[in-house]
Amino acid sequence: MGESKQIRVGIVGASGYGGVQLVRLLSEHPHADITYLGGNSSAGREYVEIYPHLAVPLTVEAVSVEVIVNRCDVVFLSLPNGLACELAPQLLARGCKVLDLSADYRFANLDIYQTWYGNDRSDAGTNQQAVYGLPELFGECLPEARLVGCPGCYPTASLLAIAPLLKQGLAQPDSLIIDAKSGTSGGGRQAKEHLLLAEADNSLAAYGVAKHRHTPEIEQICSRLAGREVMVQFTPHLVPMVRGILSTVYANLRDPGLVREDLHTIYSTFYRRSPWITVLPTGVYPQTKWAWGTNRCFLSIEVDARTGRVIVMSAIDNLMKGQAGQAVQCFNLMHGLDQQMGLPKQSFYP
Amino acid sequence: MGESKQIRVGIVGASGYGGVQLVRLLSEHPHADITYLGGNSSAGREYVEIYPHLAVPLTVEAVSVEVIVNRCDVVFLSLPNGLACELAPQLLARGCKVLDLSADYRFANLDIYQTWYGNDRSDAGTNQQAVYGLPELFGECLPEARLVGCPGCYPTASLLAIAPLLKQGLAQPDSLIIDAKSGTSGGGRQAKEHLLLAEADNSLAAYGVAKHRHTPEIEQICSRLAGREVMVQFTPHLVPMVRGILSTVYANLRDPGLVREDLHTIYSTFYRRSPWITVLPTGVYPQTKWAWGTNRCFLSIEVDARTGRVIVMSAIDNLMKGQAGQAVQCFNLMHGLDQQMGLPKQSFYP
Amino acid sequence: MGESKQIRVGIVGASGYGGVQLVRLLSEHPHADITYLGGNSSAGREYVEIYPHLAVPLTVEAVSVEVIVNRCDVVFLSLPNGLACELAPQLLARGCKVLDLSADYRFANLDIYQTWYGNDRSDAGTNQQAVYGLPELFGECLPEARLVGCPGCYPTASLLAIAPLLKQGLAQPDSLIIDAKSGTSGGGRQAKEHLLLAEADNSLAAYGVAKHRHTPEIEQICSRLAGREVMVQFTPHLVPMVRGILSTVYANLRDPGLVREDLHTIYSTFYRRSPWITVLPTGVYPQTKWAWGTNRCFLSIEVDARTGRVIVMSAIDNLMKGQAGQAVQCFNLMHGLDQQMGLPKQSFYP
Amino acid sequence: MGESKQIRVGIVGASGYGGVQLVRLLSEHPHADITYLGGNSSAGREYVEIYPHLAVPLTVEAVSVEVIVNRCDVVFLSLPNGLACELAPQLLARGCKVLDLSADYRFANLDIYQTWYGNDRSDAGTNQQAVYGLPELFGECLPEARLVGCPGCYPTASLLAIAPLLKQGLAQPDSLIIDAKSGTSGGGRQAKEHLLLAEADNSLAAYGVAKHRHTPEIEQICSRLAGREVMVQFTPHLVPMVRGILSTVYANLRDPGLVREDLHTIYSTFYRRSPWITVLPTGVYPQTKWAWGTNRCFLSIEVDARTGRVIVMSAIDNLMKGQAGQAVQCFNLMHGLDQQMGLPKQSFYP
Repeated sequence: MGESKQIRVGIVGASGYGGVQLVRLLSEHPHADITYLGGNSSAGREYVEIYPHLAVPLTVEAVSVEVIVNRCDVVFLSLPNGLACELAPQLLARGCKVLDLSADYRFANLDIYQTWYGNDRSDAGTNQQAVYGLPELFGECLPEARLVGCPGCYPTASLLAIAPLLKQGLAQPDSLIIDAKSGTSGGGRQAKEHLLLAEADNSLAAYGVAKHRHTPEIEQICSRLAGREVMVQFTPHLVPMVRGILSTVYANLRDPGLVREDLHTIYSTFYRRSPWITVLPTGVYPQTKWAWGTNRCFLSIEVDARTGRVIVMSAIDNLMKGQAGQAVQCFNLMHGLDQQMGLPKQSFYP
Repeated sequence: MGESKQIRVGIVGASGYGGVQLVRLLSEHPHADITYLGGNSSAGREYVEIYPHLAVPLTVEAVSVEVIVNRCDVVFLSLPNGLACELAPQLLARGCKVLDLSADYRFANLDIYQTWYGNDRSDAGTNQQAVYGLPELFGECLPEARLVGCPGCYPTASLLAIAPLLKQGLAQPDSLIIDAKSGTSGGGRQAKEHLLLAEADNSLAAYGVAKHRHTPEIEQICSRLAGREVMVQFTPHLVPMVRGILSTVYANLRDPGLVREDLHTIYSTFYRRSPWITVLPTGVYPQTKWAWGTNRCFLSIEVDARTGRVIVMSAIDNLMKGQAGQAVQCFNLMHGLDQQMGLPKQSFYP
Repeated sequence: MGESKQIRVGIVGASGYGGVQLVRLLSEHPHADITYLGGNSSAGREYVEIYPHLAVPLTVEAVSVEVIVNRCDVVFLSLPNGLACELAPQLLARGCKVLDLSADYRFANLDIYQTWYGNDRSDAGTNQQAVYGLPELFGECLPEARLVGCPGCYPTASLLAIAPLLKQGLAQPDSLIIDAKSGTSGGGRQAKEHLLLAEADNSLAAYGVAKHRHTPEIEQICSRLAGREVMVQFTPHLVPMVRGILSTVYANLRDPGLVREDLHTIYSTFYRRSPWITVLPTGVYPQTKWAWGTNRCFLSIEVDARTGRVIVMSAIDNLMKGQAGQAVQCFNLMHGLDQQMGLPKQSFYP
Repeated sequence: MGESKQIRVGIVGASGYGGVQLVRLLSEHPHADITYLGGNSSAGREYVEIYPHLAVPLTVEAVSVEVIVNRCDVVFLSLPNGLACELAPQLLARGCKVLDLSADYRFANLDIYQTWYGNDRSDAGTNQQAVYGLPELFGECLPEARLVGCPGCYPTASLLAIAPLLKQGLAQPDSLIIDAKSGTSGGGRQAKEHLLLAEADNSLAAYGVAKHRHTPEIEQICSRLAGREVMVQFTPHLVPMVRGILSTVYANLRDPGLVREDLHTIYSTFYRRSPWITVLPTGVYPQTKWAWGTNRCFLSIEVDARTGRVIVMSAIDNLMKGQAGQAVQCFNLMHGLDQQMGLPKQSFYP
């Protein structure tokens, strides 16, 4: 694509945590011009008033399809579940591409969506066009995509850890247990009592055990990878930190003779064209902080010869590779750009 | 008082952070029986459902003067400002003693209250009876008190640091600068965006500069101690931690020849009958964590011979000595009990 | 035992995190008198100089068997692994009872100890007398015990979660997966780079995957409970908080028809005489902070009917029920005292 | 300077916190090539082994003047105090420019350095060439500089807050009180007990009261700005967070009629050519997190008409504008580059 081509982008839901990452990334993206910020609760406010650390001279506007389609080539929707499926059909119909960060367009099978999210929908046709925006697995579909359902944060970390196991038939699919841990920013910017510093700091707990909505999302893709129905055990935990997800995945190996060096080779090969994936040297386990502020995913694979199990650890920044960063990665691929463009690679530390 | 005498106590506002400290302390207090928990937002809920870590078999009830006066000898009011001044006159009139944790009964001069809190009140007569519940300074008034206005958290930490300076005429009153730092639990349990872990963690800022409502409360007592009008500079800061206040107080010494050992002696003497005050050895500065969960105040005094200033550091747990613990200390003194009764002395560490 | 009987206790390793909990608990214990604090690195220092928040007027002394046996009826050893097995035989021989907080006396089979801890030992005879100090499972052995090997923090949290499953034959033993998460105080007070706040804060990682030394300790007791050899998958994680362990345990149910209410009943019955265990109402999952500073263990059981698995969550304070508090609980039972004596029940919150 | 000119840079002390910031920044700097990483304790290690989150294919080498001068045009020294003054004269003599991040070249008057740092030195001649690397105040000296003494973190935050007051004669110089608060990364990567997460988390304390070594550094520049000797009161505090400094500065106004809008105008004018300074709108106070990972300094000015004082708040990232970022800013100015080159402007949030 030519150097001079600028893509006009809009962000709906600009004042939330997804929104503020998108604004930061896209305001410095070489091929994007932010032409619209939408959000009903913040409509009329200068963006710098909401986030004084960002020198972005834009004003949040009320959400209007008319305004969006006139001003934007692409729009990112960063809204609560159940709103994108109202907006997207109208936007697509009028020529605007859509990257949705909610759950609305993540499910090929809308029955599953409706069972877990409890929402009646009339956009089955639109839903069929949606591409699941996990570029390391489905990147080849993105250049043609007009509607992308960006994955959830837990599914991203978990599926990147699991994919080589299932794709290569290395593990028993129904033995998959995903013990995932997330910082509190995953709960968004709405003030909720249990996310107060005074409540969440220095405490740790599981939640949504055996019933979290990311379960069917993970299972849908695992099933596709394994070529059969797969059920997983998925348990999320809330950790006293701002950002970061660590997924610790357990599975029974089909061939208990495999050692961790074998798996290291298999993973490295599997992800050899995935610049955002770092397969760590054997024996080095990922710290979530290594991914802070970047779009990277760090993977490490361990084998327990005593038990015949493989343990895969996967660390991401839940708001970047787990949300806004991945959406920008998809945006790049939709437009023929380098998938690393405009995305931070090196975290600061400490 | 006889060993067998049990005092029937009620707690209004039982589900907030002040309330939960009171419930924990009073449920284990040798001479208190909790006979009533009130709170409109939680009315009807089992207490253990709100705070599963407390094995207190009580139910929160709607607030009713009738019920309180029938069941309680004393009631602790832990409510937003402006509510206690409605309730207290009725409770006192029907024979119930009141310990109020809000700002309503902290000001001898209601004009000052009204200027800073903006609230018209008709209980001037009741207000006159109120004792300012800082036992280290006004403990002799508590045995006769029927209404106690418990001090704010910042004033407690700050006044305990300042009192010997002003009482002994050691410092120039108008040179007082109080730079105070607090954990986020001081903001209460209401969900507020800026108190979310994702917002407040790893960040630090001042707030209410030159206009925080604890300023006139501090000045009122400083003026009483100095025997003249005193104005102070008070700046609170929000620190990424749950509990604790550190007040760093600066003042110009009248006699620049004083050394820190002199001041250590003066402070130790001043507080020799105050079991909750620990004047640290010279050169040891208080950590807020040392006071965690206890009713203690740690003080340290430093002199800068170069500048002629004294620097006093004062550390408390904002919810204990800064709030509920101090209220129980006042309750003890109102009833002729040991002022340490029912209050934790030794913090756990780390 | 008579009210008046005081037990003379010593603490060796008094300046570490285990030591400081013991000092705090035993200095307020109604039937203990601390008569000796030992520690070579702090020998000669006043205890209040090391921990200014504790008003304990004692001095740390060099470690001397002669002094200990003259002054103490019982001694708590809170030392690095491999030291207690030198001291204990001498102390026992001269009539002093021993509670050891290290790994030295946790293993009935010394071969396992030597495989995982790499330490040649000549005290096999002494080792045979040791009781594994997990009172909820082996409390009946404690009244006669003269030597107690107190459990590790992870094994305590994990075994309390697992015991009813194995003892009642509810789960397939080899399906046990323990995903455990701990605060950083488990690493002790030695300054280590990876435990610095600047490194550990806002980060999360697994460690010791497939090779942590608590694995054989857990397996030893699981095997005893199941009446057959059991191997478990155990993965510890370091969480950015000071205290607390959460163990999330996964197992395949033998009878997939069991529902969580069944298991709630079984657990409640199993622990009906264990005052330190709280089986939470179904659907309530433990927060580690609920156990802060107390000797309590909070358990919650969930069943996933889709996968046929049970998920048990177990939360403790790693330095209390996971270390010093449990040692005091054992001490109580060794001396015919109420097992709750001298131990905090109610955490402060928040 | 021509687009194509690349400057060969070395970093000595590459494995500490100053070093890792420099490596990250310079590895992405458009006009710098890192040609040397030095560090005696890490000599021989791959850099990615020390910091796995940085994909920098370099090896740390033993420190050798010979190697440095052969390979580098400029070298950054990030070493403990007292080492740079040994290395710098040799490096300069052989044509290598030096940016020193320690205290060694911050003092025009070596007597003051020796009084506070206790170090005899023989490099008075070299010291005379040093420029104090605070570009907002002394930027005009940098293009000619061959040796830069980069300021301390506290002096940077404090002096940027104070400079307009003294330069314009607005405040009484001897009334200056600086109450500063820092995250724990300021203590470096050496493992120290009091910087452990288990110790420092959820606690807060002052340190170095009336004797911190940054006092004379601040006074030296204040005196230069005021044109007379100035003494300040400086109190640092340790805050439970990783990065960030907030300096709260108090001073008596000479003209008590000034209002905050006046001072806002004066500050905005003073810093109108300083792209790294953001003077916030009146009434908005800086959060340290807004500066996270960037080279920015956020300032806010408040006036208390009651007391006649001005309160200035200044927030920076202690490792960026307070250390490595500022060194790169100096490097840019030494080489005629845009002072913003290679430095992050927009923090991520939350």
